[in-house]
Amino acid sequence: MGFTEKLRGKKEFIEEFLKEAIPNTEGPHGKLFESMRYSLDAGGKRLRPILLLEACSIVGGEAAKAIKFACAVEMIHTYSLIHDDLPAMDDDDLRRGKPTNHKVFGEGLAVLAGDGLLNYAFELMIESSLRYPQESYKYILAMNEIAQGAGVFGMIGGQTADLESENKVIESETLEFIHMNKTAQMLIRPMRAGAILGGASQAELDRITEYAENIGLAFQIVDDILDVVGDQSKLGKNVGSDEENQKSTYPSMYGLEESKSMAVGKIENAKNAISHFGENSQFLVELAEYIIDREF
Amino acid sequence: MGFTEKLRGKKEFIEEFLKEAIPNTEGPHGKLFESMRYSLDAGGKRLRPILLLEACSIVGGEAAKAIKFACAVEMIHTYSLIHDDLPAMDDDDLRRGKPTNHKVFGEGLAVLAGDGLLNYAFELMIESSLRYPQESYKYILAMNEIAQGAGVFGMIGGQTADLESENKVIESETLEFIHMNKTAQMLIRPMRAGAILGGASQAELDRITEYAENIGLAFQIVDDILDVVGDQSKLGKNVGSDEENQKSTYPSMYGLEESKSMAVGKIENAKNAISHFGENSQFLVELAEYIIDREF
Repeated sequence: MGFTEKLRGKKEFIEEFLKEAIPNTEGPHGKLFESMRYSLDAGGKRLRPILLLEACSIVGGEAAKAIKFACAVEMIHTYSLIHDDLPAMDDDDLRRGKPTNHKVFGEGLAVLAGDGLLNYAFELMIESSLRYPQESYKYILAMNEIAQGAGVFGMIGGQTADLESENKVIESETLEFIHMNKTAQMLIRPMRAGAILGGASQAELDRITEYAENIGLAFQIVDDILDVVGDQSKLGKNVGSDEENQKSTYPSMYGLEESKSMAVGKIENAKNAISHFGENSQFLVELAEYIIDREF
Repeated sequence: MGFTEKLRGKKEFIEEFLKEAIPNTEGPHGKLFESMRYSLDAGGKRLRPILLLEACSIVGGEAAKAIKFACAVEMIHTYSLIHDDLPAMDDDDLRRGKPTNHKVFGEGLAVLAGDGLLNYAFELMIESSLRYPQESYKYILAMNEIAQGAGVFGMIGGQTADLESENKVIESETLEFIHMNKTAQMLIRPMRAGAILGGASQAELDRITEYAENIGLAFQIVDDILDVVGDQSKLGKNVGSDEENQKSTYPSMYGLEESKSMAVGKIENAKNAISHFGENSQFLVELAEYIIDREF
């Protein structure tokens, strides 16, 4: 089976559980569930839950015992998009080709749907933890990873820095802070949580963390490169103009070619970090390669 | 020591911990912490954390082991007020005599401060759970109570029903749903969590739940009564006009005198429910009486 086929299979596996995750609920709060489900069903790569489950299996864990955590990280990702799209934040009308949550349900309900998804993510993780009383400490450790990654020292912190940087010239440290917290944390922490649930040793956990950090950075570098390449072909502007605008990106700081080889280097680091797992690492190796294969 | 003095002492005890709960954080996300702290420091009765700690002590538990949970429920209460005050929701400019969060920090940051407080509440509860590995299952059970009370089948559900009922004639069932979920759940669940952390037996947990349900209802009835009494003296309108407006309140459904005796009855139920605890129940007994003593 080819990589894209495997990726699609894993995505569909997650989506089956996501479909069932939010109960059909009637009553005076029925619209809340409709609104939560609308955004959760809107698609996406489901990268975070896939990484979580993969980190669980690679250390020999049962994916079934981590599936609620996988759903939970996708809910957290989805809530952050709903709130991010609000008029007070990025003010986006479309997300993945569909009207954003507040465009369909109104701003008030969009705020509540986001709150609901965040809270429900914890409800799911707790429910899962209660099911395995013998392993409850392990489940709390895993929940801690998600909470930290999603929280004020993780994603919400990065989101704040992003909001505060709007229409401002920012330093490269701030940009790195935003990347690391707004995006990378919610790749790294779900993988760590999955590995913990799967019973990883400390050495295994370190390897998986190194993998996740490297693909997180590579992902960002490739995004920056694609922005430049896209800009050049679409707008005819060159890398120099980004530099003049003082927009700190990898290409503006290191040049296009150097950025490309940096991305390739990160992917090599990621692959090396998990080479220990041998054949079991095949999917994660291919996933890492897929990140830089996207365009260049 | 009189009751109000004891109440003040407990409030100050909580506030000392709340002051330290959110770390002073510099950097590109510094405003987030400022904004979270602004609303958390804005005062309030601190009723939920007081109830949680009291339920813990009354069953013989150590308040010290429940203090992070107490801070967490106040954070959840505070986040719900921040989001509730947003223009898309109640659009309030003032809360407890101070400008609301979004008036000071802007709407975007107010959304994130709310998200941050909710997430941080879970971070605190998890941190607390990790400190006592031998009791981790108990801590998950307590966390489950808070998550359920705050969630889509609790407070957020009630909030949604309230939002959906704006400018509509609603049935008495819907009003009861809103009361039970928007308000009462976050009195009942924190008490249950405190009792669980304190090592309550099932029978003790049932008694405390009954107490919390009854003071929750009494609180609501008294609020409804005070609304009517306030309306009568301020606007010269009488109970009948509320009834004509089809506003379902206890006085409009049962009349003023009957509502009063219903409130008194609930308070009696609450006191009876905890009579088993003898002298230890004194503060909760006085707290129950305080609820109906507010005005009438």
